[in-house]
Amino acid sequence: MHPVTPHTGSIPTLRAQELGVREALRKSDWPRAGTLLRELTATQVERLLDRSDPKDVPVVFRLLDKDVAVDVFAAIEPRQQRDLIEGLQDDDVQELFGQLQASGQARLLDEMPAEVAQQLLASLPGSQRASAGTVLGYPAGSVGRRMRPVLIELRSEWTVAEALDAIREADIPERRQRFIARLPVVAHAHQLQGMIELSRLVTADQGATIESLMDTDVLAVLATEDDETAARLCAEHDLLALPVTDETHRIVGLLTVDQAFDILEEEESEDSQRAGGSTPLAQPYLSTPVKRLFRARIVWLLVLAIGAILTVQVLEVFEETLETMVVLSLFVPLLIGTGGNTGNQAATTVTRALALGDVRPRDVVRVLRRELLVGLSLGATLGALGLLVAGLVYSWDLGAVIGLTLLSVCTLAASVGSLMPLLAKKIGVDPAVFSNPFISTVVDALGLIVYFLIARLILGI
Amino acid sequence: MHPVTPHTGSIPTLRAQELGVREALRKSDWPRAGTLLRELTATQVERLLDRSDPKDVPVVFRLLDKDVAVDVFAAIEPRQQRDLIEGLQDDDVQELFGQLQASGQARLLDEMPAEVAQQLLASLPGSQRASAGTVLGYPAGSVGRRMRPVLIELRSEWTVAEALDAIREADIPERRQRFIARLPVVAHAHQLQGMIELSRLVTADQGATIESLMDTDVLAVLATEDDETAARLCAEHDLLALPVTDETHRIVGLLTVDQAFDILEEEESEDSQRAGGSTPLAQPYLSTPVKRLFRARIVWLLVLAIGAILTVQVLEVFEETLETMVVLSLFVPLLIGTGGNTGNQAATTVTRALALGDVRPRDVVRVLRRELLVGLSLGATLGALGLLVAGLVYSWDLGAVIGLTLLSVCTLAASVGSLMPLLAKKIGVDPAVFSNPFISTVVDALGLIVYFLIARLILGI
Repeated sequence: MHPVTPHTGSIPTLRAQELGVREALRKSDWPRAGTLLRELTATQVERLLDRSDPKDVPVVFRLLDKDVAVDVFAAIEPRQQRDLIEGLQDDDVQELFGQLQASGQARLLDEMPAEVAQQLLASLPGSQRASAGTVLGYPAGSVGRRMRPVLIELRSEWTVAEALDAIREADIPERRQRFIARLPVVAHAHQLQGMIELSRLVTADQGATIESLMDTDVLAVLATEDDETAARLCAEHDLLALPVTDETHRIVGLLTVDQAFDILEEEESEDSQRAGGSTPLAQPYLSTPVKRLFRARIVWLLVLAIGAILTVQVLEVFEETLETMVVLSLFVPLLIGTGGNTGNQAATTVTRALALGDVRPRDVVRVLRRELLVGLSLGATLGALGLLVAGLVYSWDLGAVIGLTLLSVCTLAASVGSLMPLLAKKIGVDPAVFSNPFISTVVDALGLIVYFLIARLILGI
Repeated sequence: MHPVTPHTGSIPTLRAQELGVREALRKSDWPRAGTLLRELTATQVERLLDRSDPKDVPVVFRLLDKDVAVDVFAAIEPRQQRDLIEGLQDDDVQELFGQLQASGQARLLDEMPAEVAQQLLASLPGSQRASAGTVLGYPAGSVGRRMRPVLIELRSEWTVAEALDAIREADIPERRQRFIARLPVVAHAHQLQGMIELSRLVTADQGATIESLMDTDVLAVLATEDDETAARLCAEHDLLALPVTDETHRIVGLLTVDQAFDILEEEESEDSQRAGGSTPLAQPYLSTPVKRLFRARIVWLLVLAIGAILTVQVLEVFEETLETMVVLSLFVPLLIGTGGNTGNQAATTVTRALALGDVRPRDVVRVLRRELLVGLSLGATLGALGLLVAGLVYSWDLGAVIGLTLLSVCTLAASVGSLMPLLAKKIGVDPAVFSNPFISTVVDALGLIVYFLIARLILGI
């Protein structure tokens, strides 16, 4: 038997296959493309679809073997699933849909127009429809939407041997076996009493009772809890599975590590895209149609451009001052740029700290005190430099204006930048929505006012 | 027995305890603080330290019970560990250090001055020093630095029953048991042959051989592989543990899910802080001293401010044009702001896609084609609007200047914004280092040149 060859590159590149498939598609050589695709695992095909031009996605999908197609369909993002479905026959759609887990069905239904969603739901057999219905009963963004079903429940009065027998008898399908690495222990009516890791069962004395071995000081979340919060708990406490319960302490599902990973990855992508001033794409970049990229960006650009009209108006107010001293206009980009950068730094740091739970809205006074100090220090350093450079090159009066403006703008920007995400969180909006570009726009207008007021005062115009 | 009470808030707030401890510390009431602290688990104390003022951290730490202190020390960031160590006795330091896993020891040593690191390493007993040395032998940022030791290796010729016996006999300490959810199967000399999940062993026929059950189509990484790449593989393929090997296919460790979570969380924090234009903090916000926040930000601000002097010079070149038509200066913040925002959007999207492996440097042509299209569409939309508004309020000549400038700047910004991260990755720099503020600065200067050239052309000045 040969040893395993370790993977040495980055995420498996499969460059040859990918290029081959793309080449075959361009030549409309379907048999060749099909042959190449059949050499790939479902995960590899998923990767390839994530990197395919949007128009190629349905073509590739139709060339797949049925069982691979089902796995691939389950693995891609709901938005990609929706795009795919549009080009398929109703029968195929219903079959693919029926193969998804209840949580996957719920996420796809959220993406579909209401009437199509109704039809799809109606196409499911009774029991599946009921599970999908339960999941759909939890609000979007809740952990109830993302949890996995409980495959087996243990009883505290059982011995280890009895528990292991029960696990064997449960006849769990192979591809779901890895989700039983941490198991719930329940009393009557599915009341959660504790959790136990499978490894503990394997290593413990076979005659010991579950009660004597299980963790009873267990973290659990309500099914209505925010999915990101639940996923972070999972990560922070190194849990293989986090139990999800209803208000009556009944276990209704498990958030497994793999789901926690997916949730956190989605959240990070959303936060990062919002921080860059666009609407989250919710699908891989290369497989996103250009017109969808456009739509994700134009709304915020328009809002920001309209906000920036404020700066035109501020400058108009000070037009006379500008006419008297055109040299003042030379520093406008530098000053508002520095303000924007300082605001960005503070906003990004606080937004991330909020996401990690390191900072909470009630810490507003502590955060503000720190950012005022940081902003003042940054402003003093940059201001001294500005004073010196502008003073030497132009005049000491102008130097004083630039220096004082930098001091004020940095202090202002750090404070505004740190407060906005806290405010957003407080009123229940994603802190990343008050994103860096938005803060820059506010700081730009305020900074210009400060600049011209200081200029008028010192230069006496 | 009472059912488990699900946790309903966000990450456990422990507000009462936290306020109590902070109050006791302020009053220098050490016994009271100690009593409150002893009610908390190690994870809860870690959370509290993450949210404590830097000056309180060593005080809290000294009040902990010894066993809790060891767990807390292992859980906090290396930078926090270093800060703590500075205030402790040599004996205590050596003991705490000795309790860390080899990977934790290596990370802490990286934070320490060379001579202190030497002393600490020398304080370890022989076998521990050897493991720490092995880990230190892998480059910083490699998965070899973060992997966990292999606790047990299975043999392909064993039966399931024999494997389970071997696991029991290995006598794995309880707190490490959860790391055996996925086990390596090896031949002579630790050659990796396959992997098997513990759940598969439990559910399979006790007489079956490991060979017939194990996964042989196994993903593995070299110990020198980048830790983020390895962690993403773990996440993408839903692995409970990813085997780490050397060049001769010998297994040298396992990247377990909990470690993968930690690595990804650190990387996301770094990327987000870099995207905001600051040096990553590598420790929680509230426990970071203000002067460290200052240092993390001032360098980039200075670099960006010096870069922005370019805009002053560009404007100086066009000072005559500005004197002739002061109205042109009114639009400067709006135009460069829009350019900066468009560049941000493209840069953030591409940086994130690179981090996820959705895009690779060799996709440069595909990315550029897409971003040119998106930039043109965004520019056309905003340009049309700019033409209309500036045309109606000022003059159609000026409207044409604003409209054309927006069209050009958006196209330029989207292209530059998308190319920079790809270029960074290509030359082996973290793409997030070419962060949004940096791109804005470049786009600002280029945008101003375009603006004044178009103005001169159309307005004939």
